[in-house]
Amino acid sequence: MSKRLHFKIIANDPLSKARTGSLETSSGIVPTPAFMAVGTQATVKTLDARDIQESGCDIILANAYHLSVRPGEKLIHEQGGLHQFMKWDGPILTDSGGYQLFSLSSLAKVFDDGIRFRNHLDGDEIFLTPEKVIEIQKLLAPDIAMVIDEPLSFPHTRMNAEIALSRTLRWAEISLEEHKNVSQQLLFSIVQGGSFLDLRCKAAEELVKLSFDGYALGGLSLGEPKTKTLEIIDSVTEILPKDKPRYVMGMGTPGDIIRCVSFGVDMFDCVIPTRHARRGNLFTWKGRMSIKRSEFINDDQPIDLECGCQTCKHSYSRSYLRHLFQSKEPLGQRLMSIHNLYFYQELMKNIREKIQEGNFNRWLQENLQEEIFLIEN
Amino acid sequence: MSKRLHFKIIANDPLSKARTGSLETSSGIVPTPAFMAVGTQATVKTLDARDIQESGCDIILANAYHLSVRPGEKLIHEQGGLHQFMKWDGPILTDSGGYQLFSLSSLAKVFDDGIRFRNHLDGDEIFLTPEKVIEIQKLLAPDIAMVIDEPLSFPHTRMNAEIALSRTLRWAEISLEEHKNVSQQLLFSIVQGGSFLDLRCKAAEELVKLSFDGYALGGLSLGEPKTKTLEIIDSVTEILPKDKPRYVMGMGTPGDIIRCVSFGVDMFDCVIPTRHARRGNLFTWKGRMSIKRSEFINDDQPIDLECGCQTCKHSYSRSYLRHLFQSKEPLGQRLMSIHNLYFYQELMKNIREKIQEGNFNRWLQENLQEEIFLIEN
Repeated sequence: MSKRLHFKIIANDPLSKARTGSLETSSGIVPTPAFMAVGTQATVKTLDARDIQESGCDIILANAYHLSVRPGEKLIHEQGGLHQFMKWDGPILTDSGGYQLFSLSSLAKVFDDGIRFRNHLDGDEIFLTPEKVIEIQKLLAPDIAMVIDEPLSFPHTRMNAEIALSRTLRWAEISLEEHKNVSQQLLFSIVQGGSFLDLRCKAAEELVKLSFDGYALGGLSLGEPKTKTLEIIDSVTEILPKDKPRYVMGMGTPGDIIRCVSFGVDMFDCVIPTRHARRGNLFTWKGRMSIKRSEFINDDQPIDLECGCQTCKHSYSRSYLRHLFQSKEPLGQRLMSIHNLYFYQELMKNIREKIQEGNFNRWLQENLQEEIFLIEN
Repeated sequence: MSKRLHFKIIANDPLSKARTGSLETSSGIVPTPAFMAVGTQATVKTLDARDIQESGCDIILANAYHLSVRPGEKLIHEQGGLHQFMKWDGPILTDSGGYQLFSLSSLAKVFDDGIRFRNHLDGDEIFLTPEKVIEIQKLLAPDIAMVIDEPLSFPHTRMNAEIALSRTLRWAEISLEEHKNVSQQLLFSIVQGGSFLDLRCKAAEELVKLSFDGYALGGLSLGEPKTKTLEIIDSVTEILPKDKPRYVMGMGTPGDIIRCVSFGVDMFDCVIPTRHARRGNLFTWKGRMSIKRSEFINDDQPIDLECGCQTCKHSYSRSYLRHLFQSKEPLGQRLMSIHNLYFYQELMKNIREKIQEGNFNRWLQENLQEEIFLIEN
């Protein structure tokens, strides 16, 4: 695989920045825009590899920090890498662990040369430098590795954002150098800059100069107003090269996705479909439904009659799913995760088709007020 | 289906009382000796219907008391019965709820006309009379219904055993009367009598006079010595009619099963394969292995190279299963349950083949000291 030719654009929407393409990785081709199912611990919660595949997922995401803590990158390397370990032979992207500075903030502290964690399992120290994070991902061997970055919680001062950004940029440079002899693995960098548009744009410009295989926007949806988030994404994609994939990290309502696609974003990941399944919330084209509602007690219909997921195809009823949910039976979480992930993949397929037909922006404008696209988290 | 012709013996072992046969039910034929996977809440924990089928299970067991409390037998009836509700179209047997007198003893109290429960979810009263239990099972619509019985914890006095037995026998009579117009459903009675061999034999004689579709032995393995348990089973099967299926309830190590088969038992159920999977204990022909052991940290082999279960066939490694177990990921429980249930079904297949070849007793004697048959619980 030549790294230079890994991303192909197939069609551009005439009335927005949306584009559809294909991202070639060592483990196969990912049609874009793509949604990655989250499998932090080398498992998309409750699903085996067949379930993931049957849900239509082309690519999944795991987490370098979490897997480094348990079971350890060396073990996964000795087991033949992440694909072999979890028996998923499709593409995998690993996030670096920068986000854990936010999600595990009480255990983490940032220094100029990296992030120190008291790990969340036994308190042992783990120090993530840019070099270390590349080394971990060499051993995990996903198709796409991410550089380490420093996201900021909101609100933050401009000075803090500047300091964090300068670290993130230096780390990106070190990462690229560390990674230069790694073949078979793409390396994406992450645009930071907090909530300051000019810092974000500067970050994008600096990273583009370094020439990565793809560009992510990180540290978004951490508390800043949605209009600010969207403004940043819209502006930054203007700066990023057209011929490289763009990835907005951790954002993921259907409404977020279609808006970001219209700004030219190609990749997404989010825990929403699996986390909501755990809470009994199901995605359908008519909106989100809570399986807890008493109207479903005696409802023999599948979640969605038109849906082709394994849960709906096998006609597991709303009544049965509600019973499993109320009984806290793990099967309920699995059947509902299968449905939600399938829904997300159908959404992405739909988006890709609309772009190819040149109808994306019209479709977006016509549907933006539909309930499913108004869901806020 | 004529109830009179529902059980056929295909072969008898020449040197023991073991027999192999087929039990015809409304939902299909069950080869015996058979092991029923436990699906108390209308779900074999973590498994969907395809998983159960791929694990080789011919018949599963659910629980009338539990399903009556939640989601309620009326709801399941309105949903088309238990098969339709859980999308399992193979045979189902429901236990009555008598056993919950033991398992939920602090919430239950026995009277001459039934068992009163403060139900385990919201404390509401539920009074299980023999009539009510038949009514519940008419609505749940399993292929095989069980009468309500009164098991005794061990130790107990002879007087208590006599009182409990006389209730159980009267309840059996009422149940049979209540059930006489139910077609498409077999009704099994349950031999009680505590730890007293003569009471057990008397119970069997009385129940045989009433002519049920099958006979179970209940209230065993509740603390009495194993030799006593086996003596009771060996003696009671002498009294039970040869042309009806015999079912030992809730017993279930591989060693228990092969011994009981040698006494002429045809059906079993036990939580052991699924409960042990939850605890990381895996069954193999070489014995039981705990996935927690550090020797498996970096072991890339499947649980058992020779095993044909979906978990082993897809080569999920011991290392990965151990990681899932340590990470408390529900996928681990599922993959290990699939393996253990498959192991149990292979055990039963093996037993049936040995009987058909006329080699069962020789095989039993040669293997009784193998580690897998020495497991005590």
